[in-house]
Amino acid sequence: MDFNKRQLEIIDIVKEDGPITGDEIAGRLNLSRATIRPDLAILTMVNVLGARPKVGYFYTGKSELSVFSQKVKSIKVKDTMSLPVVMDENSSIYDVIVGLFLENMSSVFITNEGYLAGVVSRKDLLRTAMGKIDLNTTPVGLIMTRMPNIIYVEQEDSVLDAAIKIEERGVDSLPVVKIQKNDPTKLKVVGRFTKTNVNRIFVELARENM
Amino acid sequence: MDFNKRQLEIIDIVKEDGPITGDEIAGRLNLSRATIRPDLAILTMVNVLGARPKVGYFYTGKSELSVFSQKVKSIKVKDTMSLPVVMDENSSIYDVIVGLFLENMSSVFITNEGYLAGVVSRKDLLRTAMGKIDLNTTPVGLIMTRMPNIIYVEQEDSVLDAAIKIEERGVDSLPVVKIQKNDPTKLKVVGRFTKTNVNRIFVELARENM
Repeated sequence: MDFNKRQLEIIDIVKEDGPITGDEIAGRLNLSRATIRPDLAILTMVNVLGARPKVGYFYTGKSELSVFSQKVKSIKVKDTMSLPVVMDENSSIYDVIVGLFLENMSSVFITNEGYLAGVVSRKDLLRTAMGKIDLNTTPVGLIMTRMPNIIYVEQEDSVLDAAIKIEERGVDSLPVVKIQKNDPTKLKVVGRFTKTNVNRIFVELARENM
Repeated sequence: MDFNKRQLEIIDIVKEDGPITGDEIAGRLNLSRATIRPDLAILTMVNVLGARPKVGYFYTGKSELSVFSQKVKSIKVKDTMSLPVVMDENSSIYDVIVGLFLENMSSVFITNEGYLAGVVSRKDLLRTAMGKIDLNTTPVGLIMTRMPNIIYVEQEDSVLDAAIKIEERGVDSLPVVKIQKNDPTKLKVVGRFTKTNVNRIFVELARENM
């Protein structure tokens, strides 16, 4: 959004001297209150300025990207997550590698009695395949990253929170879990949220206006 | 951005009957032109409506996300790309796997006489490590994806174009190349653009207003 010269002047005045009334702003610009009314309406609507009755206009510090920001916070993980690939902790490493290729995944979530127990990535599997372990007889449980060291998200989390976890923890994918009410240590895997999902949301939001 | 009831009514009128003049819109709403002037100013400013002299207002079909969209198109690959990991086509598969672990990459770009010749991913390497090939004596050139089947971007491309390529071609990372002027088939690898970069841009843009 491009602001015109007068709107930019108003922003500067409010930044410096806010809170300030509409009449005072008009006075500074040698204009009537009526003349700048549309400008003030626009600036408050896009949240660059805030207005409080009997106080005046103040600078919010918000940029024009706030619409995007709000939108991203309103999209939930469950709206965009993918199906998880889940295998049991007793599966052989070989079977997990085959499963990973069949489903074309970068990681597989590992469960014990149906609940999340670990995660194993392509990188873990490549490291193991280079070693001396017998892939056919060794259970994946021996090489996976284990709970409680697994970063996960819940269905109601925003995609922004999920993307922040991916960024800060340096992982490619997050299990989406449902925490069991009677035992919060038990996590049911209901989905998968990855950088691929973030990339897709990014493209869709940016394309919405092409 | 939340439009008020009157603004939504105006959008509906213009959607249905545009192009339409401000006076006509005011007449439909039984209001004066002056009353709806701020609403029209806001709606044109955020690009939901367009205005053409002597024609009137028309609906642009653009949503409120256009600011984000413009921003994303203005960010170039060179502004956010990472350093590439490049190895020669004659390197052994074993050395490439070691390089990939040392640099913690999901793929390595392979060159021949300094120019892009191929790409090899963790997935390619895992598949190979599971097979019967001698990793120490086999050159990576034998198992990599070869030019011209490599999707790449240039430094001046927008991050949106890069994200679209990642999405549509189902890849994790793109080499950023400089095309040699005297021979457009020769590509110098100058960077790497991955889903990790997209995730970071997504988080930064969305956080700008938190």
